[in-house]
Amino acid sequence: MFKRFSGAIAARRMLLERCLPLKDIEELNTSCALDRVASEDIRSSADLPAFDRSAMDGYAVRSTDTKGARPSGPRFIPDFIPQRTGMVVPEGYDAIVMLEDARVRGEVLEVTAEAHAYKNVARAGEDVMEGDTIFTEGHRLRPPDLALISALGIDRVRVYAKPDVVIIPTGGKLVDIGARRLEPGEAYEINGLMARLYIEKWGANVRKTKIVPDDSERIREAISSNLDADMIVIIGGTSVGEKDYAPRILSEMGELYVHGVRLQPGKPTAFGDVAGRPVICLPGYPVAALSNLYLFIRPAIKRMAHLDDEPQRVQARVVRKMTSKPGYLSLVRVAFREDGQVEPIMVSGAGILSSVARADGFVVVPEELEGFEEGDMVEVVLYE
Amino acid sequence: MFKRFSGAIAARRMLLERCLPLKDIEELNTSCALDRVASEDIRSSADLPAFDRSAMDGYAVRSTDTKGARPSGPRFIPDFIPQRTGMVVPEGYDAIVMLEDARVRGEVLEVTAEAHAYKNVARAGEDVMEGDTIFTEGHRLRPPDLALISALGIDRVRVYAKPDVVIIPTGGKLVDIGARRLEPGEAYEINGLMARLYIEKWGANVRKTKIVPDDSERIREAISSNLDADMIVIIGGTSVGEKDYAPRILSEMGELYVHGVRLQPGKPTAFGDVAGRPVICLPGYPVAALSNLYLFIRPAIKRMAHLDDEPQRVQARVVRKMTSKPGYLSLVRVAFREDGQVEPIMVSGAGILSSVARADGFVVVPEELEGFEEGDMVEVVLYE
Repeated sequence: MFKRFSGAIAARRMLLERCLPLKDIEELNTSCALDRVASEDIRSSADLPAFDRSAMDGYAVRSTDTKGARPSGPRFIPDFIPQRTGMVVPEGYDAIVMLEDARVRGEVLEVTAEAHAYKNVARAGEDVMEGDTIFTEGHRLRPPDLALISALGIDRVRVYAKPDVVIIPTGGKLVDIGARRLEPGEAYEINGLMARLYIEKWGANVRKTKIVPDDSERIREAISSNLDADMIVIIGGTSVGEKDYAPRILSEMGELYVHGVRLQPGKPTAFGDVAGRPVICLPGYPVAALSNLYLFIRPAIKRMAHLDDEPQRVQARVVRKMTSKPGYLSLVRVAFREDGQVEPIMVSGAGILSSVARADGFVVVPEELEGFEEGDMVEVVLYE
Repeated sequence: MFKRFSGAIAARRMLLERCLPLKDIEELNTSCALDRVASEDIRSSADLPAFDRSAMDGYAVRSTDTKGARPSGPRFIPDFIPQRTGMVVPEGYDAIVMLEDARVRGEVLEVTAEAHAYKNVARAGEDVMEGDTIFTEGHRLRPPDLALISALGIDRVRVYAKPDVVIIPTGGKLVDIGARRLEPGEAYEINGLMARLYIEKWGANVRKTKIVPDDSERIREAISSNLDADMIVIIGGTSVGEKDYAPRILSEMGELYVHGVRLQPGKPTAFGDVAGRPVICLPGYPVAALSNLYLFIRPAIKRMAHLDDEPQRVQARVVRKMTSKPGYLSLVRVAFREDGQVEPIMVSGAGILSSVARADGFVVVPEELEGFEEGDMVEVVLYE
């Protein structure tokens, strides 16, 4: 029996209390900092633009010289300088007359529209002033943000280091993908690949160990030798059988605070803490592992990485009754139909990975509901 | 004046008619094919599982031997084999009795629950059968998909090649980011960085050329020497001034079918076709360039790459009146407030990149509207 059986939401809360935002910092070239999170406020040490700049092709003039100009009463100005967009507005001039409002007549400029002071001039510092805070600590750096930082001549930025996650696949009959053909009774170790690809996508660095056999001592060693990581994910051996070593090892090496959650699929999971490091045990059944990845590991990684994005969600109508286990939080796989409605994929068996292949996402059914009725609007979380 | 002035939606339609899904194919290791698109149906050449597999820890039995077993009337079975989850079910046995329903009594197994045929057995091929099509052409390969393909022993997959995009930044007073300090009147070339980071994120390979000066012949050369690309993006010199060479060059080298769009910001754009290659001209003002990136380049790249994802959208209430230019499609930058409502950032001036830094996304105001009223629900497209 599960020793520390928990509700799914309570289990997640306990996990997140132990997965704090990391404090490690690294300095990167600005152009390499895409989607990283600023670890300090970013301030400008310059004005942008650095000078009064023409915002249009036209002619630099003194605005007072254009006073009253109109098509039926043009002004003729002797003192003007042709300008292109982006050029420095010359000293002593304070407005740009657009090409369509002016024409050169020999030595003078005929102006047919009044230009007030700083008309068509991008003033020094109008975008950013020296000393302005342009991004605050915690801001994710998007492409236009890195462009702005670069425009200010800031070549290096400080960002939070990515969490380092170690994945330890365990199991006696597992073979590395592509290593060799399988003997009867063997299977390829695929959960490690799935977990690595998701965890990297969510913003962490991942290191995957060799497959560790179902051997208490070897699993213990694998944990001990990876305590430099920010999080350890053990795959397999998480249930309550004789050889389900992982949860027992956690309680011996540190604290086991969750073992078994009211989550379907994904019940046989376990969370522990070894030497201050969160350790998460994923079940070996891939669909159960996927539930755990989305419900627990994604928010934990995001929190450690100072990121707060959510997976994309779409509202849709469900075409058939969708049942779930009472008292359990359920993640029900669904597929969109041509007409935009969704169909639940009610396949039992957490081993059936092809049910995910056919799914576009999943619907979260809260513990207190027993599903949704045909025609109900549901929120579909799209698989990333 | 703009020669081929178009509505924004019409311009996009014309562009997309010329940006067809690419047919080039490449073969990758399965574990390296994340987020790539299958260029052919993927079929299984094996059953998954490859054998009848125990779905539980327990005992393999003949189901007929358990007939009628119940707690008050157990059956005693001499012929049984202990099983762990995932093991091959031995020849001649057809059910697994769970640990909690059985106890070994000397030489026999006491069974307290009836097990029908194939109870707790994952049958060979129940996930995937030999010959099944597991993914159809056009499917984006997500982490669990690559896990499934790997489970079937398929080490290589064929996917569509990514579009190759060449970015050509143009301008006389531009300096490469970080190359040196700026002289008065100069600026760093930042649009190329912003465009590269977005276009890569959207699924293309990007090559950026050196900055090309405002010189008709040099721009022409830069286009000619990059016609091996699937798309060319020219930045700067797209308007109607004397030195705005790019559109004129397109009409000379091939076809110029859009010059100027009713889009705010982002009006001075141009689309052409040179030797069958789409060429898109982005304005040099970064906020205008960003509008064009989202409205035109994103869907064009996605279409060429066989991808169909949309940027994430969120519904929110707008706290202040949001005005837009009548007859123009407008992308209005907005920022979320603490209370979840959005505030429009009504900064005119497509040069003001800090307005994007403060924005979380944008609201698309259709041509036929003149904005939104305070309190209206709007759809916010989040900046990626």
